[in-house]
Amino acid sequence: MADAVSHDAVSVIRAKRDRGELSDAQIDWVVAAYTAGEVADEQMSALAMAILLNGMTRRETARWTEAMIRSGERLDLSGALDRPTVDKHSTGGVGDKITLPLAPLVAACGAAVPQLSGRGLGHTGGTLDKLESIPGWRAQLTTAELLDVLRSAGCAICAAGEGLAPADRRLYALRDVTGTVESIPLIASSIMSKKIAEGASALVLDVKCGSGAFMKDLASARELAAAMVELGTDAGVRTRALITAMDAPLGRTAGNALEVREAVEVLAGGGPADVVELTLALAREMLDAAGLGDRDPADALASGAAMDHWRRMITAQGGDPDAPLPVARERHTLTADRAGVVTGLDAYAVGVAAWRLGAGRARKEDPVQSAAGIELHARPGDPVTPGTPLLTLHTDTPDRFPAALEALSDAYALSAPGAPYERAELVLDRLA
Amino acid sequence: MADAVSHDAVSVIRAKRDRGELSDAQIDWVVAAYTAGEVADEQMSALAMAILLNGMTRRETARWTEAMIRSGERLDLSGALDRPTVDKHSTGGVGDKITLPLAPLVAACGAAVPQLSGRGLGHTGGTLDKLESIPGWRAQLTTAELLDVLRSAGCAICAAGEGLAPADRRLYALRDVTGTVESIPLIASSIMSKKIAEGASALVLDVKCGSGAFMKDLASARELAAAMVELGTDAGVRTRALITAMDAPLGRTAGNALEVREAVEVLAGGGPADVVELTLALAREMLDAAGLGDRDPADALASGAAMDHWRRMITAQGGDPDAPLPVARERHTLTADRAGVVTGLDAYAVGVAAWRLGAGRARKEDPVQSAAGIELHARPGDPVTPGTPLLTLHTDTPDRFPAALEALSDAYALSAPGAPYERAELVLDRLA
Repeated sequence: MADAVSHDAVSVIRAKRDRGELSDAQIDWVVAAYTAGEVADEQMSALAMAILLNGMTRRETARWTEAMIRSGERLDLSGALDRPTVDKHSTGGVGDKITLPLAPLVAACGAAVPQLSGRGLGHTGGTLDKLESIPGWRAQLTTAELLDVLRSAGCAICAAGEGLAPADRRLYALRDVTGTVESIPLIASSIMSKKIAEGASALVLDVKCGSGAFMKDLASARELAAAMVELGTDAGVRTRALITAMDAPLGRTAGNALEVREAVEVLAGGGPADVVELTLALAREMLDAAGLGDRDPADALASGAAMDHWRRMITAQGGDPDAPLPVARERHTLTADRAGVVTGLDAYAVGVAAWRLGAGRARKEDPVQSAAGIELHARPGDPVTPGTPLLTLHTDTPDRFPAALEALSDAYALSAPGAPYERAELVLDRLA
Repeated sequence: MADAVSHDAVSVIRAKRDRGELSDAQIDWVVAAYTAGEVADEQMSALAMAILLNGMTRRETARWTEAMIRSGERLDLSGALDRPTVDKHSTGGVGDKITLPLAPLVAACGAAVPQLSGRGLGHTGGTLDKLESIPGWRAQLTTAELLDVLRSAGCAICAAGEGLAPADRRLYALRDVTGTVESIPLIASSIMSKKIAEGASALVLDVKCGSGAFMKDLASARELAAAMVELGTDAGVRTRALITAMDAPLGRTAGNALEVREAVEVLAGGGPADVVELTLALAREMLDAAGLGDRDPADALASGAAMDHWRRMITAQGGDPDAPLPVARERHTLTADRAGVVTGLDAYAVGVAAWRLGAGRARKEDPVQSAAGIELHARPGDPVTPGTPLLTLHTDTPDRFPAALEALSDAYALSAPGAPYERAELVLDRLA
């Protein structure tokens, strides 16, 4: 028999493998020992696979989340501010730039929005990558700087510190290479451990559902949303979730600077209808969760107050809100070869194409191209005729066009000209 | 997305995780890449857990076994000898010293028996550890030395070379610390990859079943035996299996030198009835598989021919068959505290106690005590009265007595004095 430590790791793995429920002591021990390097990666990946295949109960998931939080430090921003704090998290979609107009909009309505965000990996972009296309803007803030920005702008978007839930950070990297990402209890605890450690007092989750999202069907999206709302509620965070469609990309752009431009259009009172609709829906949920349900975010958008908060936030983080955004050196436009009505636009294909053009990264240390991405001219519901521009590819490295075009070969679905088109719902469900 | 290699590892893991069947190309790739160090341990352990929980088909198991064989070298002993070769493998039990009398017995009947064996880990002893209690005896033989011993003694028992199925060797060590040992396809392929790589032309498997064995019930023992017979047959090895009881220890000893002494008693025409019975049953299967079904091993035992082959084998491997075997410095005898008939003697408890006395090892680099172990005075069916010796513990390190006695606290089951006792069958099933 091996030493006590390996012995315990094996007994925890075997318990879950044999469909048992892990005790609080087993969960606390295995997460602490993994954090301390006493449980090896190969043991944790076997446990993660057993969890993925055999599940965890609500109690186990809550305890797992607490153990992940205890592996690092906790922030308490609410105590240092005179306004209620509220946070938002999206499970990630293509063209999902909602955080950019949403944070200043909710700040303009009276809440404090400390938005600790991540970078993109794979086919979905990262909020920090998008904002870094603004000349001078800095993602790294100390806690003191974060509080200064929150006091002056009401909102801040910055990188989450390495000290928050470090065990989850290591586990996530491990799951990524061991085929153990797609576990609802592990996804829920990964997201919620970071959000709870950030000290959010209220939280709104945007759980994406569809071809361009992690959750492909409504049932799994509901299961994930319910697990996260339970975890937040149990931890004393006022948590609610919207389940929103991610079959087609959000808005008319996917790519870093392209999405910033679209976000600014929304803050200026324009922008694509779906981006505006979702921004307002999430803003209402955030204000309600923050106890400010009487404020109407549509007013703050119309009055320019939201734009004002955006400009203050960008400036406070070193950026120039008036500086021109980078533009790609090369463009390539795809046109329709027949007449019809666009009935579908595959979000996943657009996400992969934008990634291949340079908007995303293959490894977390890779750089991204600020200007790369895709501009969508035709969206579901739009009629097209031969020669109508469908989309434009943007990149600084045109040798990437063929791979991006390959990803897009079946992205558009067209019906016959004049065929009726029924717009799909954007908000599919709400959990609170 | 990660690089091509990780990407492929993840897609293989996901395929099995999602209950898919792995293709030949996927199996070949993942085993070769693991051997080359391109698939990491944490990826292989996640795959092993997915295999354990979701299974492998006969085709997948066969291909997995072939890939393990191809990771190293293959021997071909049959070509170099003028007699048919036949091999035996036991899945491991307590007091299982059968290989010791069996190899010279089958050799005395005309077959060549190249018995490549392992060391003990955990509660079951290893054949090489047992033989190493004979002064001078060497487990390590080159292939040329092995052939010399086979020519002079008809049999050889030696360590399997590191070059046979090295991927399986590494995988087995990984499974041991990741809770992924108990998978029938992985156990079957691990055993059979080594046996097929050794170039056995005929093989008899002793699949143990019961409390002291890996397989606790007849259904799993049958499943494992069937999987191994299929793998051997598909690879052109004449393979058959006996499923034999391992609820009580075999014979009257568990421990290295103690078991050698008992094996020599059997070769001398004595020894415990169950050890003699199983030795003869396996010898008949081996001779039949080797095409020598007309020889009667009972004759070779009675005539002393088997003992003669034993002495030649021990001598050829540097040992002195006449040297006294080591004796433990300390002994402790346990007696019955009431009258009754022994109805059960828990093999697992005896195995753990012998291991704790020093007969086995906790890690593969640990030394073992040659003289440590347990002598069983009372076995199932024996009547006892208060004061009747039940068993004697042997060790060089008496501080180990308490832990060994703790393991034995419930080892004996007694019924009322004079109660009828029905002896259980030793050979439970046969597969060919």
